[in-house]
Amino acid sequence: MRIDLHKIPQASPDDLSGLDHLIQSGTLDPTQIIAILGKTEGNGCVNDFTRGFATQTLKAYLGEKIGAAAAKQIVYIMSGGTEGVLSPHLNVFTRQAGSLEESPHWGLVMGISRTRPFAPDEIGSLAMVKTVAQAVQAALDDARLTPENVHFVQIKCPLVQSNQAESGRSSYQSMADSRGAAALGAAIALGEIQPEQLQPEAICQNFNLYSKTASASAGVELQNCEIFVLGNAAHATGDLIVGHAVMQHALDIEAVRSAIADTGQPPSQVVNIFAKVEADPSGAVLNRRHTMLDDSDISHTRMSRAVVGAVVAAVIQDPMVYVSGGSEHQGPPGGGPVAVISRLSSAPVR
Amino acid sequence: MRIDLHKIPQASPDDLSGLDHLIQSGTLDPTQIIAILGKTEGNGCVNDFTRGFATQTLKAYLGEKIGAAAAKQIVYIMSGGTEGVLSPHLNVFTRQAGSLEESPHWGLVMGISRTRPFAPDEIGSLAMVKTVAQAVQAALDDARLTPENVHFVQIKCPLVQSNQAESGRSSYQSMADSRGAAALGAAIALGEIQPEQLQPEAICQNFNLYSKTASASAGVELQNCEIFVLGNAAHATGDLIVGHAVMQHALDIEAVRSAIADTGQPPSQVVNIFAKVEADPSGAVLNRRHTMLDDSDISHTRMSRAVVGAVVAAVIQDPMVYVSGGSEHQGPPGGGPVAVISRLSSAPVR
Amino acid sequence: MRIDLHKIPQASPDDLSGLDHLIQSGTLDPTQIIAILGKTEGNGCVNDFTRGFATQTLKAYLGEKIGAAAAKQIVYIMSGGTEGVLSPHLNVFTRQAGSLEESPHWGLVMGISRTRPFAPDEIGSLAMVKTVAQAVQAALDDARLTPENVHFVQIKCPLVQSNQAESGRSSYQSMADSRGAAALGAAIALGEIQPEQLQPEAICQNFNLYSKTASASAGVELQNCEIFVLGNAAHATGDLIVGHAVMQHALDIEAVRSAIADTGQPPSQVVNIFAKVEADPSGAVLNRRHTMLDDSDISHTRMSRAVVGAVVAAVIQDPMVYVSGGSEHQGPPGGGPVAVISRLSSAPVR
Amino acid sequence: MRIDLHKIPQASPDDLSGLDHLIQSGTLDPTQIIAILGKTEGNGCVNDFTRGFATQTLKAYLGEKIGAAAAKQIVYIMSGGTEGVLSPHLNVFTRQAGSLEESPHWGLVMGISRTRPFAPDEIGSLAMVKTVAQAVQAALDDARLTPENVHFVQIKCPLVQSNQAESGRSSYQSMADSRGAAALGAAIALGEIQPEQLQPEAICQNFNLYSKTASASAGVELQNCEIFVLGNAAHATGDLIVGHAVMQHALDIEAVRSAIADTGQPPSQVVNIFAKVEADPSGAVLNRRHTMLDDSDISHTRMSRAVVGAVVAAVIQDPMVYVSGGSEHQGPPGGGPVAVISRLSSAPVR
Repeated sequence: MRIDLHKIPQASPDDLSGLDHLIQSGTLDPTQIIAILGKTEGNGCVNDFTRGFATQTLKAYLGEKIGAAAAKQIVYIMSGGTEGVLSPHLNVFTRQAGSLEESPHWGLVMGISRTRPFAPDEIGSLAMVKTVAQAVQAALDDARLTPENVHFVQIKCPLVQSNQAESGRSSYQSMADSRGAAALGAAIALGEIQPEQLQPEAICQNFNLYSKTASASAGVELQNCEIFVLGNAAHATGDLIVGHAVMQHALDIEAVRSAIADTGQPPSQVVNIFAKVEADPSGAVLNRRHTMLDDSDISHTRMSRAVVGAVVAAVIQDPMVYVSGGSEHQGPPGGGPVAVISRLSSAPVR
Repeated sequence: MRIDLHKIPQASPDDLSGLDHLIQSGTLDPTQIIAILGKTEGNGCVNDFTRGFATQTLKAYLGEKIGAAAAKQIVYIMSGGTEGVLSPHLNVFTRQAGSLEESPHWGLVMGISRTRPFAPDEIGSLAMVKTVAQAVQAALDDARLTPENVHFVQIKCPLVQSNQAESGRSSYQSMADSRGAAALGAAIALGEIQPEQLQPEAICQNFNLYSKTASASAGVELQNCEIFVLGNAAHATGDLIVGHAVMQHALDIEAVRSAIADTGQPPSQVVNIFAKVEADPSGAVLNRRHTMLDDSDISHTRMSRAVVGAVVAAVIQDPMVYVSGGSEHQGPPGGGPVAVISRLSSAPVR
Repeated sequence: MRIDLHKIPQASPDDLSGLDHLIQSGTLDPTQIIAILGKTEGNGCVNDFTRGFATQTLKAYLGEKIGAAAAKQIVYIMSGGTEGVLSPHLNVFTRQAGSLEESPHWGLVMGISRTRPFAPDEIGSLAMVKTVAQAVQAALDDARLTPENVHFVQIKCPLVQSNQAESGRSSYQSMADSRGAAALGAAIALGEIQPEQLQPEAICQNFNLYSKTASASAGVELQNCEIFVLGNAAHATGDLIVGHAVMQHALDIEAVRSAIADTGQPPSQVVNIFAKVEADPSGAVLNRRHTMLDDSDISHTRMSRAVVGAVVAAVIQDPMVYVSGGSEHQGPPGGGPVAVISRLSSAPVR
Repeated sequence: MRIDLHKIPQASPDDLSGLDHLIQSGTLDPTQIIAILGKTEGNGCVNDFTRGFATQTLKAYLGEKIGAAAAKQIVYIMSGGTEGVLSPHLNVFTRQAGSLEESPHWGLVMGISRTRPFAPDEIGSLAMVKTVAQAVQAALDDARLTPENVHFVQIKCPLVQSNQAESGRSSYQSMADSRGAAALGAAIALGEIQPEQLQPEAICQNFNLYSKTASASAGVELQNCEIFVLGNAAHATGDLIVGHAVMQHALDIEAVRSAIADTGQPPSQVVNIFAKVEADPSGAVLNRRHTMLDDSDISHTRMSRAVVGAVVAAVIQDPMVYVSGGSEHQGPPGGGPVAVISRLSSAPVR
């Protein structure tokens, strides 16, 4: 299995000039695309339509290139919010059977899956956790990956809009519930949490239960979950490898360096970094009070993306990184998983 | 009892030039001040320090004029948020025994009271409801008012900051809980709700329970509740009168006109209008979808103040009105009480 | 000429279920659509992608219904910003030659036109004014309208993004410049301003020069201007009529009533109201200080839409009205044009 | 001359409990305070009243401790904006003549000064530049510092509110103009720019002219400029030393390390770091597009503080640092000066 990753800048959510150039020049074969992970420039919260706009544009474009049915098989995950230095871009993943000249070696493999749609009152529930767990397992199977070799599980999950809401839950809160349940589903599939450990009331309450590799992003543009998993395996034939670490807090610059080191490659070989973040729910970072949770003018998910985006970008001196807000059950409270895809600097050992 | 109301523009939260002019010119005797209700230009949400800034400035100024102990007896209620056309101002209420030349007649009377401080986990609880109910009764006694003649109950109540919060409640949500419990306290004191009707789980859940005259405003600048009541009684000796109505929705312009009519005076006699508002929790106003509850960039309390501020101001062609956001248990869902103080256009009947 | 207007709610910028229902049921013939004026739920400022998202969705949908070439002939004008009670919707205008059974009478007619694209440094310039003036004249010709019978000129105009900007002009400022130049173009075409009166330095400086019927809206989603004009003429055959007035300030509720009266129809016959607004540049409304221009957290165009939206909606008790922010050279400073389309309550006089 | 720096957390703009504790315990002698530099939790833009609230609170408190006249001699500079991880705090600087036991050595010295008030139309003008230049020279004299040994010049400067504004300048823009002119004044006093190089039209236009040590912060709470300078000199007797560097861009983490190294002390000895920042006016950081200048919901100065605050805090793993937004003529476009005060790790060489 050969996985390639093309990191493509976007001038706006509907800008596909970079993707089109790669396809026109023959660098990227659109029939091989299995997933597109985008960072779009909306507010990343409830009324962020840049995610849906980018997805609609991609589907229409790829529908023309490879047919609507094939375009529909691709997993599209758009995460809103490019606060601070974060730079809007698409991560286009392609997958192909290893070519005859390539022999398998230890490196990046990838799988995808989808859940059924969820009803509004299922979002954030134990039923959602279980359904996501099954789908993550399906993605592992698709990648031929074992849990211990997984480094990143990306899940796009739905939210509840105010006009669908049951009494007392805001649409913004439903995003947190949805991300939390999705992350716990991944944790169960990966064996990080045992199903019997998980009581319904623990969801978005007991944050000591978490996954070290799950990354969940909620959006108004879908009703089900769409999933991809990244890991390393012996049947890889490409020149990419993935590593990860867990940030303990928003300024955990050492964790970013550890995640890079986990790929076995120098920082110059990094293709992209994928991190989840949140404003520390304790109200303090490194024992210093922060004001993100009491700022009624700027959502704390927006601010936390600006912070961790700056930290990650400073390490590799590249602001075109993927940082997504809201890390409920994704890493410890105030922290979050960070994964790195690097290019193998020398010919892989076969 | 003679109540006077001075409506004074402010150029900033610490601008007391208007008040000082009235005092210097002998128009306003600072020893007679019993309450100051301000509309300050912060965001009206958690991190709004304009309320505390105005209060601190007032206390220091009046402390010099009338002594710190006397200044401390005054009820200071600052409500943040002058979105749209709303114009920052102070409502300075004075009270004096009727002078010898004045005979009593039907008109405005006023009373004040305070509760004990509340612990963070009491905020929004049944204990808070009961404590507020007792304090509202004390304010009625202070005014020598009977419940059926009350037209406006203003309560300033505390909130829970994120660093004090128990798990799972945001500081923004605690403002709603606090306002809701305070309003229910008023409703019980006024006989609008029977104590046995009120279950703890109804607070901020069953919005069919509400007061028609309570107006609660939460802020970081106090830990207890401060209260004043306005009503009409036969022992009034001043030239003001109060009326009220209940807005059923944010565009209920007829209710504003009814409240004016309830004073028995023409619109030209209005001194100020006091209204509570909220973004309709159903997600629609007059069966048309609104987007306030799904806008993650602007708090819905801010937007709802802009809306009702414009409606009220348009009726009397004066944007210097008091409109406060967050009307949990204050009027029906999506609506809120509206009170009017007018000047008697002819000599009161004695 | 018969003009019809369908006012269609949208649940999101890409929701065409209402339009589709009208087309499927035969109520609306898509080949007759000449213009679609939408109010979408973005911030209405620079990074509002709801406008482009709605337009892309409409073009793709109508392209399937009537062919891409025909869909491209339609004028699409999306104005962002549904602050407060404003409700997202589309105004779909159709035009057809009067049918045999209908005889012409005084009523609504409509024309459309487009300009060439503008370079970034042309935006807000005298060259833009002149080009728009010619295009407005073309739209008048298309409608067979004379200037004195025009009631509304809608112009969608471009802006300059920060990465295209010359030194010293923000993208937000370029929106104002673009709207101002477009409105002056309309004023010249309508004879409200003589070309020789207009010096280049007057653009967005001398606001005593203005149009009483122009409404300009800037967006990132186009580089040229797209225009439609509405007026009354003797060759109308439909059952609509248009009127207008000029709001002198944000609370000019009488102007809204005048505009309704100008149609000769009672308020119950109003189909939609179209208004332009701005935060009064003097810093005061009706001699009361407002804080919109000094609020660094919420753009003043957003707040001013919430205000005027509430006022207009309160008059007709319908929040699904079209209110657009930024009224440079559109009505007097702090005010703006307001137009009303009403349905003739009885059979038109033929 | 002995300079001490106390870095004191604040729980709110009016929280002086930390300062009071130091004074009560005898650690800090209030008669020795010459300047207080605060980072308060407002929006840092026009309508940020946390600056004035903190200053009012400090003046009242210190007035009681040392008398109103002495309290008035202190330079109070409050800079708003603690976005992201930045933690609200006060930097209280004390100055005393070296005690008998201390011999002079190379280390931190400090001087203060003030300008006259500026009229609104002077703000951002060449007249302001010249007046600030003279005042910076006065502060150098007060510190007995030569320009080549200066590492940080902090200037608090006024802004123009919308109700004072001449046509066409927003209050937000006036903040930039004021900071720019103040920084150019410092640059002239320090010999970084020759007076004859500076044309009036260069102010806030030609950003190739800049100071490497100036830090200017605008606020509504004063009409003049208040200034302090930090540098090293042979007549120091305390245990602090200052260094600086210039960040070339928002992610210039090496410049932060250089500034620390410039003090000759290890990172563990850092007391505080002082940085100026801005959203890169080119629209890109390290050749990657950023969206800060086109985001109409969050001011770019707010976002840029979050970014550089995170970078600086990550280096020393302490979020209680001073980062201030808007670096016009303060460092190169997109960058800004960064200064570090460290404690001498061993006994200073005498």
